[in-house]
Amino acid sequence: MADTSAKRQLDSDKTGEPAQEVKRGKTDNENGREDGNESVQENVLSGFKTSSVLSDSAREKNIFIHGKVADQDAVVILEKTPIREDSLAELFSGSTLKLEMKNDIYSTYRLQAPPHLNEIKTTVVCPATEKHIKKYQRKESFLVEETEEDYKSVTLPYIQKQSFSVQWVYNILEKKAEAERIVYEDPDPDVGFVLLPDFKWDQKQVDDLYLIAIAHQRDIKSLRDLTSEHVPLLQNIFQKGKEAILQRYNLPASKLRVYLHYQPSYYHLHVHFTKLGYDAPGCGVERAHLIADVIQNLQSDPQYYKTRTLYFPLRADDGLLSKFKEAGRL
Amino acid sequence: MADTSAKRQLDSDKTGEPAQEVKRGKTDNENGREDGNESVQENVLSGFKTSSVLSDSAREKNIFIHGKVADQDAVVILEKTPIREDSLAELFSGSTLKLEMKNDIYSTYRLQAPPHLNEIKTTVVCPATEKHIKKYQRKESFLVEETEEDYKSVTLPYIQKQSFSVQWVYNILEKKAEAERIVYEDPDPDVGFVLLPDFKWDQKQVDDLYLIAIAHQRDIKSLRDLTSEHVPLLQNIFQKGKEAILQRYNLPASKLRVYLHYQPSYYHLHVHFTKLGYDAPGCGVERAHLIADVIQNLQSDPQYYKTRTLYFPLRADDGLLSKFKEAGRL
Repeated sequence: MADTSAKRQLDSDKTGEPAQEVKRGKTDNENGREDGNESVQENVLSGFKTSSVLSDSAREKNIFIHGKVADQDAVVILEKTPIREDSLAELFSGSTLKLEMKNDIYSTYRLQAPPHLNEIKTTVVCPATEKHIKKYQRKESFLVEETEEDYKSVTLPYIQKQSFSVQWVYNILEKKAEAERIVYEDPDPDVGFVLLPDFKWDQKQVDDLYLIAIAHQRDIKSLRDLTSEHVPLLQNIFQKGKEAILQRYNLPASKLRVYLHYQPSYYHLHVHFTKLGYDAPGCGVERAHLIADVIQNLQSDPQYYKTRTLYFPLRADDGLLSKFKEAGRL
Repeated sequence: MADTSAKRQLDSDKTGEPAQEVKRGKTDNENGREDGNESVQENVLSGFKTSSVLSDSAREKNIFIHGKVADQDAVVILEKTPIREDSLAELFSGSTLKLEMKNDIYSTYRLQAPPHLNEIKTTVVCPATEKHIKKYQRKESFLVEETEEDYKSVTLPYIQKQSFSVQWVYNILEKKAEAERIVYEDPDPDVGFVLLPDFKWDQKQVDDLYLIAIAHQRDIKSLRDLTSEHVPLLQNIFQKGKEAILQRYNLPASKLRVYLHYQPSYYHLHVHFTKLGYDAPGCGVERAHLIADVIQNLQSDPQYYKTRTLYFPLRADDGLLSKFKEAGRL
């Protein structure tokens, strides 16, 4: 499953060369709809040249594309937006319908909507590294069995050697980026966290609500590092995260699925809050761990996640999978 | 999950008026609106009055609406279309981009596309009966927290009082039904089981492989009844189920997600085998429990599933949900 948030993991170490705005010379637009002297935003994608489609989903109406923007490698992710109830009246009155098929009481049409009622969420990663491109490429997954020993001898050395940058996480925690997106913060250095919407969520409707709580503590890589001493941190994130979501989005705890990923996309403790009933990518039992279960397990066995065999899927191109193969564990 | 193809089930016997091609002129209007003096199709939806949203999916970008067209009940289904590779160049050059966020090499935009490149598939059922309307109605789910005490005082009495029939399960175990569908059987009365395809799987491809192992033991209602004495049974189902699937479908264990549901659909122990990467209904962390985790948990704590607080979703129309509400547990 392609996961737009997973991009975070691959944030390059070259810090923050800002994505470039590309100057648009002549319009390529065949329809000749030149904007002339209007003061409009430059279309950074007008000069985008597609190299290949990395993956797509007809079910989810998204596509991951590799290409070039002004000679720089870029990954562009397009995803159609959910249909909003509050725009239906305008959608029905302002659109054009083209009949496709009619059979008894059933008929089907192609509806052409005013562009502002039918937007496409667009994410640009530019410049993109080889790693980004590989990341978004559709790849088969394999279920890996990781014992306590496997973690120490295979996974941990791999994580440490890769030293994935989480600079973008620190930017958020330090309000150097995305400060205006923060929904709630508990600034406590031990049990505090920042809650903000995941990039996958456009925040237009709560049906696909998706927020991430990022712990202020910087030394917890993943589920594997958790012991009973972290129970207060987990309880605080769980409790205050639920309260903040109730207050901001009017969604009670009984409508939430709150969990950690293992393996996570990036090795800094974070917790996923998604709406129950929304099939969020990564909410499957093979990767998600309910925070309520994690808390209970740590309460009854402080070393639960240090000692258990854990199962998780890895994509065919994941470097960690090669390490498990080399170790004869697959 | 509402399913557009499901309407076929309700299709009337009246046979098909052939699909009509509708003649119309060009519309170059930016908003895709009609110009008025052309010979165009009437917009059957321009007078549509929404009564309620029956269901929608933010992930799949669809919505099911009940309303009225000229005093007749109608169901309208809108679903955004998949993004097509062959339209990308035109999409990039002909659209307007609005910047939403920029952080390091990542930026997000709202893309407003020319209407003909971004259509919405529209299905109209009119006149719609009460059955259609109920059919498309989503039943909301709520996450329930069930302590050991809740199980004894709320859930168990409910299950016992309902005395849900599992005669169809016994028919399978006794070869009185579906005998020809059996993929594998271990006839041992203690650790044996029958493995057969789930009805959701058409067996045409392994991409959505879905099999069920049904235990021969008849006294295990669910996860809640499991103790360490059942570890040999679970291990046997896990091991021989994987072997049978490898042999029959050439799918190795590393491509399988093997789990139990809690609450289950029926109260006789059974185990789900689905292909990793296939988003099988019910494989979410809120309902599924990996059999490998269940085995480990029972090995370290024989009473794990008798004593833990368990979380699961219940639909609004589930009788058990009413019992939890009556008990003041929601």
